[in-house]
Amino acid sequence: MSNTDNLKETIGSLQKEFTDNPDRAILSYSSLSKLKEGLQSKATLRDHKLTIDEPTSFGGKDEGPSPVELILAALGSCQEITYKAFATALGIDLKSVSVKLDAKLDLKGFLAIDDKTRPGFQNIDGIVKLESTAPKDQLDKLIEVVNAHCPVLDILQNKVPVKLSQTVFSNNQENETAAKVA
Amino acid sequence: MSNTDNLKETIGSLQKEFTDNPDRAILSYSSLSKLKEGLQSKATLRDHKLTIDEPTSFGGKDEGPSPVELILAALGSCQEITYKAFATALGIDLKSVSVKLDAKLDLKGFLAIDDKTRPGFQNIDGIVKLESTAPKDQLDKLIEVVNAHCPVLDILQNKVPVKLSQTVFSNNQENETAAKVA
Repeated sequence: MSNTDNLKETIGSLQKEFTDNPDRAILSYSSLSKLKEGLQSKATLRDHKLTIDEPTSFGGKDEGPSPVELILAALGSCQEITYKAFATALGIDLKSVSVKLDAKLDLKGFLAIDDKTRPGFQNIDGIVKLESTAPKDQLDKLIEVVNAHCPVLDILQNKVPVKLSQTVFSNNQENETAAKVA
Repeated sequence: MSNTDNLKETIGSLQKEFTDNPDRAILSYSSLSKLKEGLQSKATLRDHKLTIDEPTSFGGKDEGPSPVELILAALGSCQEITYKAFATALGIDLKSVSVKLDAKLDLKGFLAIDDKTRPGFQNIDGIVKLESTAPKDQLDKLIEVVNAHCPVLDILQNKVPVKLSQTVFSNNQENETAAKVA
């Protein structure tokens, strides 16, 4: 059985399982990260470890991508994986897929120079390159279904409710502050 | 000069430079990624390379974090870096900062089982642990300023305009499709 057959079977069996048992479709994801020396953070995602840092021009040591660059890598890879999954499930030829993304960020937001400037990306533009011999109507359908179901595209294009609480330790004593972000 | 002094000087000089020359504050970020075998993607962010993959239960080989896990690593590390930067700039004691994040994702969205279910995260909850001897009013101010200026928190809590165009190659011929995501 080829890899593609395996993937098609996996997608089909997941669809069946979660249609029959909707509660099982709700997944939990976690990350644990800690700032090390300078502006460098080490993140743990299950068994995977990442080093995140800032360029030297921003006071980091440039030993890894920056947090906002991870956002771009997440979107590009999520698009690609979603293309592969749906092309396989729908039986549409897809020989390769790659994504180039460009984003703008105005540091006047982060640096609190101008409170009307958002600290995050102003916008993200990208080109998705698909290699395929499928007819145009199939590819148009594929593009539509991918953009309707790509998790990271949804996360960026629509608000995600984020709730952060802060716990302060001093002299081994823990004091939970009341401040929260809803 | 200590690392903290260096960072304070860097932040101060960036603030001065971008106050005097607002146009220079607009930064460009890019990523280039490509799907390799299976569901594995390789991303390049300047000189940094990442392997992104899916767990075996979803048809991947689990050779790296998944795209949505990168989103969590981006948020955790961005919070930490923003805490360090503002604590340094404001002269507030901060011995350590770490972030634990938990998110829910309902696969009925991604798998097109239920079109009313969003494919991205339903929500993200987190705990930020700060080690500090600073008084409560200083820490409350720090928490407030960090959450108002953390780029990835803004990216997740507010919509980012994403525009993707698709280019199809077949038999070495390129045909740009009309489909776009605004």
